[in-house]
Amino acid sequence: MKKVAVILSGCGVYDGSEIHEAVLTLQAIERHGASWHCFAPNVEQRQVINHINGELMSESRNVLVESARIARGHISDVVELSAQDYDAIALPGGFGMAKNITDFATQGANCQLNDDVATACRDFATTGKPAGYICISPHIIPMIYPHGVEGTIGNDTDTAAGFTALGGQHIDCPVEDYVLDQTNNVLSTPAYMLASSVSEAATGIDRLVKKLVELA
Amino acid sequence: MKKVAVILSGCGVYDGSEIHEAVLTLQAIERHGASWHCFAPNVEQRQVINHINGELMSESRNVLVESARIARGHISDVVELSAQDYDAIALPGGFGMAKNITDFATQGANCQLNDDVATACRDFATTGKPAGYICISPHIIPMIYPHGVEGTIGNDTDTAAGFTALGGQHIDCPVEDYVLDQTNNVLSTPAYMLASSVSEAATGIDRLVKKLVELA
Repeated sequence: MKKVAVILSGCGVYDGSEIHEAVLTLQAIERHGASWHCFAPNVEQRQVINHINGELMSESRNVLVESARIARGHISDVVELSAQDYDAIALPGGFGMAKNITDFATQGANCQLNDDVATACRDFATTGKPAGYICISPHIIPMIYPHGVEGTIGNDTDTAAGFTALGGQHIDCPVEDYVLDQTNNVLSTPAYMLASSVSEAATGIDRLVKKLVELA
Repeated sequence: MKKVAVILSGCGVYDGSEIHEAVLTLQAIERHGASWHCFAPNVEQRQVINHINGELMSESRNVLVESARIARGHISDVVELSAQDYDAIALPGGFGMAKNITDFATQGANCQLNDDVATACRDFATTGKPAGYICISPHIIPMIYPHGVEGTIGNDTDTAAGFTALGGQHIDCPVEDYVLDQTNNVLSTPAYMLASSVSEAATGIDRLVKKLVELA
């Protein structure tokens, strides 16, 4: 059975992993005959957001500990992730990716990428193993594949400009589809960058994961 | 379009709603042609559990605020829920149901049910509108339907004994199936009381929700 590593960034769309995308990714991995294990960096969240009113809460939470809520405990520190133990990697979205894994949400194309996540993702890149980036996560792609790479982050002009400024070639893509860069073996899909329902997000994620497992 | 109210109990299997079950329920509601809106009580969680090691954390979180993470903001205080505005109700599981909505996890058959959730659920019961209880949530069923009711909470003898002690008639049920009490129009399915994967939980939840929407 093929094994997919899933990198999470907390638990909740505004300060962590987008929960629907994460669960749909895990479900799709199983549906297409592979198994999953989750990983997250053992760092403090940049923010904790009240998901009713969007306001900042005066508390601190740990990215790995909160991500474990989605993983039902099947999770390890991302420092333990090695491409030799897995056949593919997937990164669901949510603002956690652009706040905890990078600071793209505030710094745009000047953002910094978490060292341990960078090491893990580059390990998959250099060994040619396939990777799937979902929703806002594709902004990381140009930092992992610096010699030219195609990807999608939806159709929003400003966000797409960020992808381009980071060195990638942006491809507009509808919510139910994905972009495959065949040279680098990297896939991306817009999910909740465009989706207005769980079902819409599910369609593109399921198609991306199906291809990811095929390529693995 | 039929409308389903979904009652959540936090965000995370050990102290709130089981996240996979909640997302799978929302997705199934959409797949079967209905719309959803979430509700939760505006009360403090009984506990906050570290989902990596199962240990108690010394912080407090609000059930409604944390549930909003799963609902992507589409959530209201359960005091606002009236059966006249919705066609059916669904309650995903997770220990939050047995810690925050009742105290079944510690008190067993002597548990107390949150007043506002009780009022909402009884509103659906007295108007004959269908209700779907998932995973551990079915322990609430005998408190809502006191004149004899059939339901399932999986196959665990002790938990089933709790259901019986509360006044229900327990039916053993495999993970991919559900129990329908036709007299009371109430459905139940074991989900993660028995499931060992997202896919297993998804099968029973999807079948329950399909029937729930048909009955609505």
